[in-house]
Amino acid sequence: MVAGGRRERLGAGGSGLAVWALVACNVASLALLLRGFVDGGRRRGGGGAVRAAGTATKADGARLPEDETAPEHAAVALAPDAVLSLELCVSTTYSSPPRRSGDPTMYEAFWRQVGERAATVIPGWQAMSYFSDAGALCWFLEPAFDREARRLHRLVGNAVVDGYHLVVGNGATQLFQAAMYALSYDAAAADKPVPVVSPAPYYSSYPPQTDIQLSGHFRWAGGDATAFSTGAGDAEYIELVCSPNNPDGAVRESSGAGSSKPIHDLVYYWPQYTPITERAAHDIMLFTLSKITGHAGTRLGWALVKDREVARKMVYFVDRSSIGVSKDSQLRAANILAVVSDSYYDELRGVPRLFDFARRRMAERWQALRAAVAASGAFSLQEVASGYCNFTNQIVTACPAFAWLRCEKEDVEDCAAFLAGHKIVARGGEQFGGDARCVRVNMLDRDQVFDMLVQRIAAIN
Amino acid sequence: MVAGGRRERLGAGGSGLAVWALVACNVASLALLLRGFVDGGRRRGGGGAVRAAGTATKADGARLPEDETAPEHAAVALAPDAVLSLELCVSTTYSSPPRRSGDPTMYEAFWRQVGERAATVIPGWQAMSYFSDAGALCWFLEPAFDREARRLHRLVGNAVVDGYHLVVGNGATQLFQAAMYALSYDAAAADKPVPVVSPAPYYSSYPPQTDIQLSGHFRWAGGDATAFSTGAGDAEYIELVCSPNNPDGAVRESSGAGSSKPIHDLVYYWPQYTPITERAAHDIMLFTLSKITGHAGTRLGWALVKDREVARKMVYFVDRSSIGVSKDSQLRAANILAVVSDSYYDELRGVPRLFDFARRRMAERWQALRAAVAASGAFSLQEVASGYCNFTNQIVTACPAFAWLRCEKEDVEDCAAFLAGHKIVARGGEQFGGDARCVRVNMLDRDQVFDMLVQRIAAIN
Repeated sequence: MVAGGRRERLGAGGSGLAVWALVACNVASLALLLRGFVDGGRRRGGGGAVRAAGTATKADGARLPEDETAPEHAAVALAPDAVLSLELCVSTTYSSPPRRSGDPTMYEAFWRQVGERAATVIPGWQAMSYFSDAGALCWFLEPAFDREARRLHRLVGNAVVDGYHLVVGNGATQLFQAAMYALSYDAAAADKPVPVVSPAPYYSSYPPQTDIQLSGHFRWAGGDATAFSTGAGDAEYIELVCSPNNPDGAVRESSGAGSSKPIHDLVYYWPQYTPITERAAHDIMLFTLSKITGHAGTRLGWALVKDREVARKMVYFVDRSSIGVSKDSQLRAANILAVVSDSYYDELRGVPRLFDFARRRMAERWQALRAAVAASGAFSLQEVASGYCNFTNQIVTACPAFAWLRCEKEDVEDCAAFLAGHKIVARGGEQFGGDARCVRVNMLDRDQVFDMLVQRIAAIN
Repeated sequence: MVAGGRRERLGAGGSGLAVWALVACNVASLALLLRGFVDGGRRRGGGGAVRAAGTATKADGARLPEDETAPEHAAVALAPDAVLSLELCVSTTYSSPPRRSGDPTMYEAFWRQVGERAATVIPGWQAMSYFSDAGALCWFLEPAFDREARRLHRLVGNAVVDGYHLVVGNGATQLFQAAMYALSYDAAAADKPVPVVSPAPYYSSYPPQTDIQLSGHFRWAGGDATAFSTGAGDAEYIELVCSPNNPDGAVRESSGAGSSKPIHDLVYYWPQYTPITERAAHDIMLFTLSKITGHAGTRLGWALVKDREVARKMVYFVDRSSIGVSKDSQLRAANILAVVSDSYYDELRGVPRLFDFARRRMAERWQALRAAVAASGAFSLQEVASGYCNFTNQIVTACPAFAWLRCEKEDVEDCAAFLAGHKIVARGGEQFGGDARCVRVNMLDRDQVFDMLVQRIAAIN
């Protein structure tokens, strides 16, 4: 499948021979270089001139970048009877830390295919200042990241960027809190927290992330917005609109009722998960690298914000919470996003294309899961929408990042407990304010985990 | 000055020839490689195989890594009558964003001297997971960073690490909030915020960072701890102990009075600023890369925490606030700290040593500032301590990261306003809960800014 949506041509043109000569030269020197790091890594205190992150100090030091084995997490073989933990982070209090679990690690295979082209080099003296652009509204935003994020939105066509302020954060998580802070800033003067709602089933981390500090500005008010949207007069409330929704992939809109102040969490609004039907143009739109390219460890999110004062308040929140955002993450993210965008230009035909890879992989996984559910007979899956995708220029069926699996057995009230009995750990529906007969299943784990999951589900009857 | 404190020898031994062959090989290939990036950067949409962060997408693309000019901030020449803004971040509300100002950018010159050795390479497929070590208490802590941070503390001898939990955060700023959360966790059940105090003059960001969310857990209670430390019974309070203190460099201890729960902010307890007189062993100790190596943009702090439950609560706070900390920052910090430690081993004699560089530079700057103050006659400076430094094995005089400059002119009540009239922007003493006749002066700015500062101060009379 070759995506063929609107393509902007930003490159300064061909000069193909020179480019490919450079590519060849750089690949050769990188191979030499990385081998040097790794060999150097065997001699602690000795010195490869440049260190490959994470390998220079590894005791074994023997893994070559071109080695096709997966990195260390995946290298741990799954025993046939291993418990499959599919959830990202199941801690609800400090005393129940998260288990090893799901992640958007499906994408590792893609970035191994891309290879050296996607590597990032940061010289020791670079990006040392607190400031990226001291005169800018978001003074800790790296201009290169700003540029590449906007360029990708223009390529994909999923959000309007012109006229919007881009605020960068430590993941969408921090920006979600920054947005609540900004939207409740004036109301908070009265020392009455602004209620925060999201219709169930909602992302299970919304309540604890909202209330981690028991903020005087805003407070989680549950999964039922009717009290605010009907008859309650003009009481302001913040509405979290996650679309496609986590956990069930539903396309959502703000109720728009009463004095709703919506925050649009669009982290899954990318072509591998859902048809891109329009350029979204909401007041506050949240995105994150994790769900686009799989780089969750980079902890990089951004908000597109229409109102300048709201953007300034969000910047202030990020300043006071962490004095900005890692420049290293931003520089790496700029490179990663540039590779994604570049691959959709003619000059780089032949380079793997992220959305094509991910779309194909998601479609295969959904097909496999549906077959397993049909073979089992004990479950059902959420319905998903189809639509014309402006990016791929064809009608596509949504492939949500999570399956919302419902147990249809009459004697099962608690699907999570039922699955645990089959050595599958998944997050139960009531954690999302929803039906305990449902569980959320991460569709973005590594192949090995996903394949075992579908085998086990197929065997349950 | 060759530092000669306790040195651990962790290297796996010599094999000098092989090491230096590797160094030569890697330097050669990096030069080739970096030249490739930059040239590649001139062709947007074309493709160097690997991108040098921040240069690949620059429009001019012409700066070579070996170029001795400073990066873009410093490249802006200061006009002779330019306003000198010495402060890092003077925003006290969202509507007064920070001005371009101070930073630990003095260290850029050092890292340019070190050169390619300190560069970090991160392959596209690396560090993608949310998890660094899913089984660890701090599951988002990169093992390489954990190892290098502990190794540096052992080398310098400024803090006990054995038996301590290391919690990583988005700067010391996030960890300071995580620590307050952890220490007030149980008390907060009663929905009465735990008071937070720090004797004046205190770090001016403590109050707004404490109260950014108007937390129900903790609340800033001012610069006077006497209400809590005398006679108030057993009311718990959190005491922020910054030592050496920001802004005045004073060596501080917890009052220990009443039911104090101290957080020790030791971000300046490094040999370039103060004699290392003991291995600190407090309950919670905060550190940050910014003040050691100057990498403020990397936003990486860590806490050494004695109590396991407190550490778990801090981890939970960082999880809920930002789902952990950038792996890219951690990998780069591990490399940077490894270069610092390695340089103090015999094998790497000849490589620039960070603490020697910084100590020398700070001593020169303090000497220059004292001379300027003497020439002026309008000011005085804080007294600083001397002591035997276990790291350098000699008696040294403290060289604080900030000067606490007092205007001694009888008709001047507000030193910041007075200096502003001489085109010097500095943070006034009352922002630190202290004397308005004082200002804080950043001693870690780039040479050009610092040199102009001392010239101007010398000319004031």
